[in-house]
Amino acid sequence: MEKTLFSKRLAELRRRLTGIPADTAWILRPENRRYLSGFRASDTQFTESSGSLLINKDRSVLVTDSRYTTEAESEAIDFEIKTLNQGLIEPFCELVNDMGIRNLAFEEDYLSWGLHNQLSERLAAFSSPICLIPSNGVLEEMRVVKDKAEIEAMEASADLISSVLDEVIAGLKPGTTEKAIAWQIDGLARDAGAEDLAFPSIVASGPNSALPHAMPTGRKIETKEPVIMDVGVKLEGYCSDMTRTVFLGEPVSDFKKIYSVVRKAQLAALDNIRPEIESNHPDAVARQVIDDAGFGKYFIHSLGHGVGLATHERPRLGPQNPIKLETGMVVTVEPGIYIPGKGGVRLEEMVVIEEKGPRILTKNDHFYDF
Amino acid sequence: MEKTLFSKRLAELRRRLTGIPADTAWILRPENRRYLSGFRASDTQFTESSGSLLINKDRSVLVTDSRYTTEAESEAIDFEIKTLNQGLIEPFCELVNDMGIRNLAFEEDYLSWGLHNQLSERLAAFSSPICLIPSNGVLEEMRVVKDKAEIEAMEASADLISSVLDEVIAGLKPGTTEKAIAWQIDGLARDAGAEDLAFPSIVASGPNSALPHAMPTGRKIETKEPVIMDVGVKLEGYCSDMTRTVFLGEPVSDFKKIYSVVRKAQLAALDNIRPEIESNHPDAVARQVIDDAGFGKYFIHSLGHGVGLATHERPRLGPQNPIKLETGMVVTVEPGIYIPGKGGVRLEEMVVIEEKGPRILTKNDHFYDF
Repeated sequence: MEKTLFSKRLAELRRRLTGIPADTAWILRPENRRYLSGFRASDTQFTESSGSLLINKDRSVLVTDSRYTTEAESEAIDFEIKTLNQGLIEPFCELVNDMGIRNLAFEEDYLSWGLHNQLSERLAAFSSPICLIPSNGVLEEMRVVKDKAEIEAMEASADLISSVLDEVIAGLKPGTTEKAIAWQIDGLARDAGAEDLAFPSIVASGPNSALPHAMPTGRKIETKEPVIMDVGVKLEGYCSDMTRTVFLGEPVSDFKKIYSVVRKAQLAALDNIRPEIESNHPDAVARQVIDDAGFGKYFIHSLGHGVGLATHERPRLGPQNPIKLETGMVVTVEPGIYIPGKGGVRLEEMVVIEEKGPRILTKNDHFYDF
Repeated sequence: MEKTLFSKRLAELRRRLTGIPADTAWILRPENRRYLSGFRASDTQFTESSGSLLINKDRSVLVTDSRYTTEAESEAIDFEIKTLNQGLIEPFCELVNDMGIRNLAFEEDYLSWGLHNQLSERLAAFSSPICLIPSNGVLEEMRVVKDKAEIEAMEASADLISSVLDEVIAGLKPGTTEKAIAWQIDGLARDAGAEDLAFPSIVASGPNSALPHAMPTGRKIETKEPVIMDVGVKLEGYCSDMTRTVFLGEPVSDFKKIYSVVRKAQLAALDNIRPEIESNHPDAVARQVIDDAGFGKYFIHSLGHGVGLATHERPRLGPQNPIKLETGMVVTVEPGIYIPGKGGVRLEEMVVIEEKGPRILTKNDHFYDF
């Protein structure tokens, strides 16, 4: 990514800032921080930030502590780097005051109540008191439509995990444990150059496949049962996310039926994704297919979600809070049916929305025609 | 872990709750959730919780959504499981009201300002309004001293990563990339049964070793330069954390000197860790050794930190906010010297504090006598 890309994003943020009642934006969310600055560090835990951004019309400042100064200086080339003593409220508040900030917009979902409480008390104590202004979604709104460089990164990320899945599915044998398969996926992904996994790989077989967020266990996969693999990687920060359900040998007829319903729901949803459509519509279409087949109560999550620097981001393709789909959004389409104690089927594609409809980025073509 | 362990912890929490002005504790932090309930799920991101606990004198409730119900029921056997629609404020507030809660203590560092704002508005609107009471550190205080089962889990976790490091160091060759070494560490750890890494493995060579939180790069390690490996795994949820600095061939004399100072600082700190000592004292001792050798400004972090279900937890062994060390605390002792552009040395042991002093859990003995 070149300097011009980040400059362009900063300019767009500054344009949007004129719409909120604050003179400066304080960016805490790691994905937003990377999107605007190029600073790649992750946060080890929610209460341990590796840095944040202060952006107003005159200045772009990256605040970090001494563990990260060197990386910040080489990665966030459009930013002034300020190194503060780790975890200290006082030097941060003094910097804010020295910068002449009076109304500081913070990301309300990424600042804890406790830290807000400490900061607001201290900031109010300056001779010209400083206000903390809650804000929400400014960066997320910018990130929802991907630019060309982002779509290229996501294509590469999806290609990588699709190829990994090609190889893993081709070599799948009964008797292998879920953990061993997950481990093989991770290894191949790393060997192929993945920066990281986008999320812990899910490999869930037999009854475990009824758990949408199963962690891989020591269970050995068997013939005739569903094996769900839900996997993704990060490449240049960008996530991929895809799911296939595989059977070794002919499945029992219940699962043939379930698979075909899920696949039909997925294809129907894909047919209903294009610019200008409300984001709850594809979910409703898929849900109708599954309802009609009598499995409605077993489709226990939303149809899909946006993907980008975060594995889960806007837009959500679910029943609530619809927004209009647009060209350049990247979303997953992942209906599933989960029968507790028996097993489940989930199929997930990651697609970029183009003028004429969705273009599938996750190219592995392991689907059954039951 | 048996049922009795969790019952004991719940009883202790209930005892401590009598000291805060709330009738019910709402536990959001994933490590605290697991400590009290045995529920193993992690949170995919800060804004995506897999569940929380509501605990008062009569009831222990685990609130989750349908993706996690089955796991919650089998893992949190002392808890009533309540499945709510994912992400919805309304059903959570109604449950709180139905439970007769009037003053709900929340973990102020693990609830975002935004979610607090939404909840407090809704909870105040009930005919008998419900108050949110900030609280901080109740569970962290319980977790700071480890019980027997926890120390055993941490010994096993430390043994696992120590053995991995034995093997990796024995096979280390010039020309291997940092990434390949990190990848080998991850692989051996997984093969040995690790549940997960405790944090992304750090392998930093040459000038990269001057970055305390370096991410592994494609740089090939060379002879005579420092190679820092800072690694740890999770086993039964419990983290290990250790660092060795390795040289292939005789290092240049500057690094011999730096290494010997860091090692001397570490041994001096270890000599000053025992029950009743203030937690800032070992840091001061190590800092003095490094200062005296003229490297004071290059020791840019605290001496160490507590380890347990979280990689970083109480107590911090640093200059600020001292507490008295106690038998059963598990801490790291990790002085370092980092010369920007040149390289660094860090040595880290994880120890459990016993009556007579620290017992080292990280048994790999790759140290130099420069």
